[in-house]
Amino acid sequence: MAERKYRLYGFWRSLATYRVRVALALKGVAAEQVSINLLQGRQHDAEYKAVNPQAVVPALYVDAGPPLFQSMAILEYLDETHPKPPLLPADPRGRARVRGIAQIAVADGHPLVVPRVRAYLEKELKLDEPARNRWCAHWTLKALEAIEAHLAGERETGRYCHGDAPTLADICLAAQVFAAVAYFGCDVKALPTCMRIYGECLKLEAFDKSQPHKQPDAPANPTH
Amino acid sequence: MAERKYRLYGFWRSLATYRVRVALALKGVAAEQVSINLLQGRQHDAEYKAVNPQAVVPALYVDAGPPLFQSMAILEYLDETHPKPPLLPADPRGRARVRGIAQIAVADGHPLVVPRVRAYLEKELKLDEPARNRWCAHWTLKALEAIEAHLAGERETGRYCHGDAPTLADICLAAQVFAAVAYFGCDVKALPTCMRIYGECLKLEAFDKSQPHKQPDAPANPTH
Repeated sequence: MAERKYRLYGFWRSLATYRVRVALALKGVAAEQVSINLLQGRQHDAEYKAVNPQAVVPALYVDAGPPLFQSMAILEYLDETHPKPPLLPADPRGRARVRGIAQIAVADGHPLVVPRVRAYLEKELKLDEPARNRWCAHWTLKALEAIEAHLAGERETGRYCHGDAPTLADICLAAQVFAAVAYFGCDVKALPTCMRIYGECLKLEAFDKSQPHKQPDAPANPTH
Repeated sequence: MAERKYRLYGFWRSLATYRVRVALALKGVAAEQVSINLLQGRQHDAEYKAVNPQAVVPALYVDAGPPLFQSMAILEYLDETHPKPPLLPADPRGRARVRGIAQIAVADGHPLVVPRVRAYLEKELKLDEPARNRWCAHWTLKALEAIEAHLAGERETGRYCHGDAPTLADICLAAQVFAAVAYFGCDVKALPTCMRIYGECLKLEAFDKSQPHKQPDAPANPTH
């Protein structure tokens, strides 16, 4: 079988793109990266909407496509097509726990702070910047507090969110903590388990090199 | 193997609980249902937070637990433990498309209209009811427009979102359309494919009997 070609459409500061970069790196999959500048609204260009009609990143071409969309669907695809190392445990209950923790970040925390929501807060609701930042910090922290309750209270927690190898849950946790610390200045003192595991993640090259501010399309001094 | 016992904590009007009810019904799994009245804030009771520390529904006990949480993690668990009928196609690309469509509803549309967000809009941002309804209708419709672009433009679309059998995508689509029509009065004329498939879903007993207003804990004349 000829080796597949991967092309990732994303943006340095996008948390969902960060997730996909980590998964690609953990799987040892090289991908060409195409930067869609969300700060300039390039996701709304007709050229990009032909890639992803939702006008969001990421999107992943595998060979000629059609492109894959939604970060969690992409992560599951990568895990199914590149089983080693696994990003989900083998048992159904464990898989449900990992997916559940991941979804708290992906489906409860992150959707509240994406560019289109922040634009609505500014343009439709006329919120000033401090009020918008309070909104973003509030929901980012709420999701992490929910994850902390699981991680601190459940025996499956190990070096990482579920045992001693990184899973989808760690990928989503890392992006969520990054946002809390680097983008929204959240007070993380009530999140000791999240922060411990985040530290473990950053010891892995796949997480470290995939961080938003280390991407080639990031400015030299990101202002976020 | 002794038959497993299932106990679903949910609420009649919760879209995430609706998804789990449909999946249980499609799989032929009987579950005891426990109603957590979100309108009265019962999800914040200590008794329920011992079930789900995030204070959201649904949560699913399988035998003695620990309880499963997050609707998508529960749906994947049910599909793994009860493979027939499958709720995902067999090929990784098809699985990614189904999960991607599902995630547009679950991770982009629904999180903007959950009770805790509506409470923040009211209590922190002091939005009046018409402004809150505009918010809910806007994001519910945005997600459906993104799903419509996929369904209308892609050859994998069949009687249902992906071919001629219902999948996770249909479950999430049905809940999202229900909210658009029954809760937020969205104008759905730009969603012909979504509405056609929603109609197909409701022909199936598993979807029909799982609808929010048909639940035993729903009021006789739901005001939503």
